[in-house]
Amino acid sequence: MLAVAVELFNERGYDGTSMRDLAARLGIAKSAIYHHVTGKEELLSLALDRALAGLAVVTERARALPAPAIERLEYLVRGSVEVLEAESPYVTLLLRVRVNTDVERAALDQRRAFDRFVAELVAQAVRDGDIRPDADAMITARLLFGLVNSIVEWYRPARRAGAASLADPVCAMAFEGLRTRRR
Amino acid sequence: MLAVAVELFNERGYDGTSMRDLAARLGIAKSAIYHHVTGKEELLSLALDRALAGLAVVTERARALPAPAIERLEYLVRGSVEVLEAESPYVTLLLRVRVNTDVERAALDQRRAFDRFVAELVAQAVRDGDIRPDADAMITARLLFGLVNSIVEWYRPARRAGAASLADPVCAMAFEGLRTRRR
Repeated sequence: MLAVAVELFNERGYDGTSMRDLAARLGIAKSAIYHHVTGKEELLSLALDRALAGLAVVTERARALPAPAIERLEYLVRGSVEVLEAESPYVTLLLRVRVNTDVERAALDQRRAFDRFVAELVAQAVRDGDIRPDADAMITARLLFGLVNSIVEWYRPARRAGAASLADPVCAMAFEGLRTRRR
Repeated sequence: MLAVAVELFNERGYDGTSMRDLAARLGIAKSAIYHHVTGKEELLSLALDRALAGLAVVTERARALPAPAIERLEYLVRGSVEVLEAESPYVTLLLRVRVNTDVERAALDQRRAFDRFVAELVAQAVRDGDIRPDADAMITARLLFGLVNSIVEWYRPARRAGAASLADPVCAMAFEGLRTRRR
């Protein structure tokens, strides 16, 4: 039921989806849905929690990693791409959240805390001399996760069954750059 | 009037905006709008043309540039970021287009042709030995313009009056990579 709700939210927007639409897509009565959840907002909450839980695990590991900031940053990028691939409909929903309800506000607060953590890692990596000194931490953090999050626009799990993770090309572009390093 | 229409389309979606909404925001009668345009679809068409015209100029220059593919690719990225900064509401609208009307279909066809051109440049740069040989042309093209296009999610022209263009940090990350190159 959650998977179908998320599919509809992504197709029509959360605001544009009614419990009636959901019942129709599931082929069951509206009352049967209310047997399981209190309403649309609980479905949104469950869906966003699923995306956020995946990112929280990666964040905690990146925080705890006994390694320089640049390595923890790369770990965070790689892990985020993998969460996005594993849970793409849930992450897509998270990235499209607008602040209308308390559930959405709470999710956005968590996204902002995540962005701050990324910016801190970038700033530390600059101080360590591992990222170019002219890189602005906030802009770099936004570009880096803009790159990661842009994948939801075209990633289709069905098409890429068995395909290699995008974590490698994303990290190669962002950390090493596309240009061949000539010796 | 076009600027206000684009503002509304970006806030509520093209489908979610009525001519009545537009008249209310402009503070004029609906009939006064029809004095200038035939309807909502003409406004969409004018707005998308403005974004596409900017990108077409950059594409033509990149195509004609007497330089290796890697330089033409960087020129295209840089120029696209500058178009996005100069015309951000129009580019935002273009990036959110869904295929419902002929106007949207035509805009998407142009975006697809643009994506193919990017992929061709990447493939040529790989053959030239200027991009790492393990880079997949299609994935690289998508990541590169995912990075560029992600800027519309947070770019606010008003806040950055007089600020440096994002073209430098975008190209630095994508082509040189964040990691300091140690000698």
